[in-house]
Amino acid sequence: MTWKNDTVASVNPPRGMRDFLPADKARRERVLAVIRDRYRAHGFDEIETPVVEDYDRLHAGIGGDNEKLAFNVLKRGLDADAIRAAADAPDGVDAHALADLGLRYDLTVPLARFYATHRAELPTVFRSIQMAPVWRAERPQKGRYRQFVQCDIDIIGDATSRAEAELLVASLDALDELGLVGATFRINDRRALDWMLAHFGFAESERAGVLITIDKLDKVGPDGVIAELRGRDAAASAVEAFDAFLRRPQSDHVLPFGEQQIRAALPAGAPDDIVADLVAIGAAVSAARGIGGGDRVDAPLEFDPFLVRGMGYYTGTIFELAHPSVAYSLGGGGRYDGMIGRFLGQDVPAVGFSIGFERIVDLLETAADAGAAAVVLVHDRDVPVGELVALKAALVADGARVRLEQRTKNLKVLLERAAADGYTSFATVAAGQPRDALETKPLS
Amino acid sequence: MTWKNDTVASVNPPRGMRDFLPADKARRERVLAVIRDRYRAHGFDEIETPVVEDYDRLHAGIGGDNEKLAFNVLKRGLDADAIRAAADAPDGVDAHALADLGLRYDLTVPLARFYATHRAELPTVFRSIQMAPVWRAERPQKGRYRQFVQCDIDIIGDATSRAEAELLVASLDALDELGLVGATFRINDRRALDWMLAHFGFAESERAGVLITIDKLDKVGPDGVIAELRGRDAAASAVEAFDAFLRRPQSDHVLPFGEQQIRAALPAGAPDDIVADLVAIGAAVSAARGIGGGDRVDAPLEFDPFLVRGMGYYTGTIFELAHPSVAYSLGGGGRYDGMIGRFLGQDVPAVGFSIGFERIVDLLETAADAGAAAVVLVHDRDVPVGELVALKAALVADGARVRLEQRTKNLKVLLERAAADGYTSFATVAAGQPRDALETKPLS
Repeated sequence: MTWKNDTVASVNPPRGMRDFLPADKARRERVLAVIRDRYRAHGFDEIETPVVEDYDRLHAGIGGDNEKLAFNVLKRGLDADAIRAAADAPDGVDAHALADLGLRYDLTVPLARFYATHRAELPTVFRSIQMAPVWRAERPQKGRYRQFVQCDIDIIGDATSRAEAELLVASLDALDELGLVGATFRINDRRALDWMLAHFGFAESERAGVLITIDKLDKVGPDGVIAELRGRDAAASAVEAFDAFLRRPQSDHVLPFGEQQIRAALPAGAPDDIVADLVAIGAAVSAARGIGGGDRVDAPLEFDPFLVRGMGYYTGTIFELAHPSVAYSLGGGGRYDGMIGRFLGQDVPAVGFSIGFERIVDLLETAADAGAAAVVLVHDRDVPVGELVALKAALVADGARVRLEQRTKNLKVLLERAAADGYTSFATVAAGQPRDALETKPLS
Repeated sequence: MTWKNDTVASVNPPRGMRDFLPADKARRERVLAVIRDRYRAHGFDEIETPVVEDYDRLHAGIGGDNEKLAFNVLKRGLDADAIRAAADAPDGVDAHALADLGLRYDLTVPLARFYATHRAELPTVFRSIQMAPVWRAERPQKGRYRQFVQCDIDIIGDATSRAEAELLVASLDALDELGLVGATFRINDRRALDWMLAHFGFAESERAGVLITIDKLDKVGPDGVIAELRGRDAAASAVEAFDAFLRRPQSDHVLPFGEQQIRAALPAGAPDDIVADLVAIGAAVSAARGIGGGDRVDAPLEFDPFLVRGMGYYTGTIFELAHPSVAYSLGGGGRYDGMIGRFLGQDVPAVGFSIGFERIVDLLETAADAGAAAVVLVHDRDVPVGELVALKAALVADGARVRLEQRTKNLKVLLERAAADGYTSFATVAAGQPRDALETKPLS
């Protein structure tokens, strides 16, 4: 035992993980319920997989850098010989000899595994919702936790831009419903990035590295990016061509999303098919969002030719959710044809979006519970149990939420806590008091 | 890598664990939502803790036999020396040298830890809801899984029978709301059991063993119990006294729950305080359940002097939920003063009830989604994306749930699957078709 005694000082949740007290938990559940409801309305279906997956699945190369951050689960019933063999493996410590399972670090690897297991039972175009925790053994820091909830939707089996349009429209609808009206998507296409780098003269072998640098444009600016590219072992002429492009004179006139804007943001000669796909997505989102409101006709999209997104598995469109109230993104996603079919041994088109659940929860203020009255019954010590519990049940049957509290000397503190927990009124109960004499007062 | 290739044959969820497809997942979420809503109405507040706890907490003796079933999490960054030391520990393999965390096997250990961490932020009487998965490395068998959901309510800080009455009333209300009307509780008190065994003459040291045998009464009957007790090293005169009590002539007349029934079921001279507590709980549940319905005046309780329940930590009342539609229990709980305060180093009264979520889910038929229309839009391949996505958005904005399906040769199969997923109507969409020409037909 590493802890010395059963005292409060030693009882915290595991490092980098959080408990949720009632007010936080209620807010999280409300946000999840809204997102679930909107995504379901848009034809997505929720699924669930176990929190652990086989070690091999989690370390098959799909997870990128996250694979290193997996929490692994010790095999049951290991004997001393097996443990020693793991320590003495020829290539260094063999974690897989000790662990057969691991906690998932994302919801994409489990989705690929789930789809391989159940494809025959799913519709041809499968629209999934996953809202569930994932675990990463990262160094804990402000706003970064070792257990956090991810909230993904994916469309599997549709190679057309209809899938992108459905994802974006459903997500904007969910944001609206959460009160975050006015959200927009920055959008790009990995194929456009690839074409652009080829156009400047970057060799295929150096493009992945160049993308990592371009991904820093928001942080370090054009000068920083060009300096870093010059430091890289990249073709000098390509860097100069890119530099010239970044410094080209641009009109101050902001174009609405559409072919003209996309072509103006890219070097001349961008491939028609890529531009057409983006335009089609914008038109569809615009048409869908135009309904029912006069001021939503413009597509809430912004083409950003330098949007990269980290993961190596994207193959087409990529997008990030932005909201005027915050500088950081509230979610992201893209098309990743080829990965979902990995465990199935065949290519399957797929596009996904992960809404930033933890960021959104932090952003939203605690909203009082909608509707129902919430009453605290402050009772004297001597009120008979039956009287009290029956009174409570009667109020619950009438639709209220009811908490019993035995009267304490400091009634004020008691009522303040109840108000903080979302209770809106209180009444005092004495022994033998007739039920219709109950008088509720608002909790201010 | 232990799996040979990326084929379907090898992709299952981890051993003993389940994936949930859309219909199952929706049903589970509906049941959780109903239980959450009813418990909240009764003044309980939901909390959440991380799925892992420190290894020491999970192996502090609170978990009973479940401690051996914990999935342990491998420490990160172990080197060969540390692993070898774990293998060569003087008392045999030292799992704790390899694992610093474990997946929780119940929600009680985390609650005790949570309460110790946050007591200052919680009301004096804290009524918690926890609805969350737990993990046990049991040998998988029918109906028993290595990951399953527990659904617990606990009242911490109330030593009176008010707490039991609140738990039972809230749970019966939840069952009603799920459509399982007519549920009852079998109830007993560990203090009554202890008094009864002393009364027959069992020494204190042998009572724990005797309880394990009595717990089998439902399965093996009175003869089986007496035979096993005779085989035990228990006082012979006590066994004979117990045998005579079991065989005593009893009236066929079934008494309603109350003092008379309790006293008739126990040997003469049962302590007044224990009987009075049980009667008070019955009266309170009766009063609460009598409200709003003419036929619910009898307490839905049955006193069972031989109800034991396995866990060693119970100190007072114990109860099990029964329903006429099934032979097995649908949940259980009891008072366990002394355990919640374990990590706090002080005694705290507590009583809890765990509703049998997995059993209830299996019992309930899939109910169609309440209310909202659910429409499948079967579209031709050539309908423009914008037209289609805008049409879908318009229906969603009107309150419907909408799935897009591209027309296939076998429309029947497509529609049958949609019906199985809860969709209730469909409409076909051709390119250029005016929106008001949409004609929805019911899915039979």
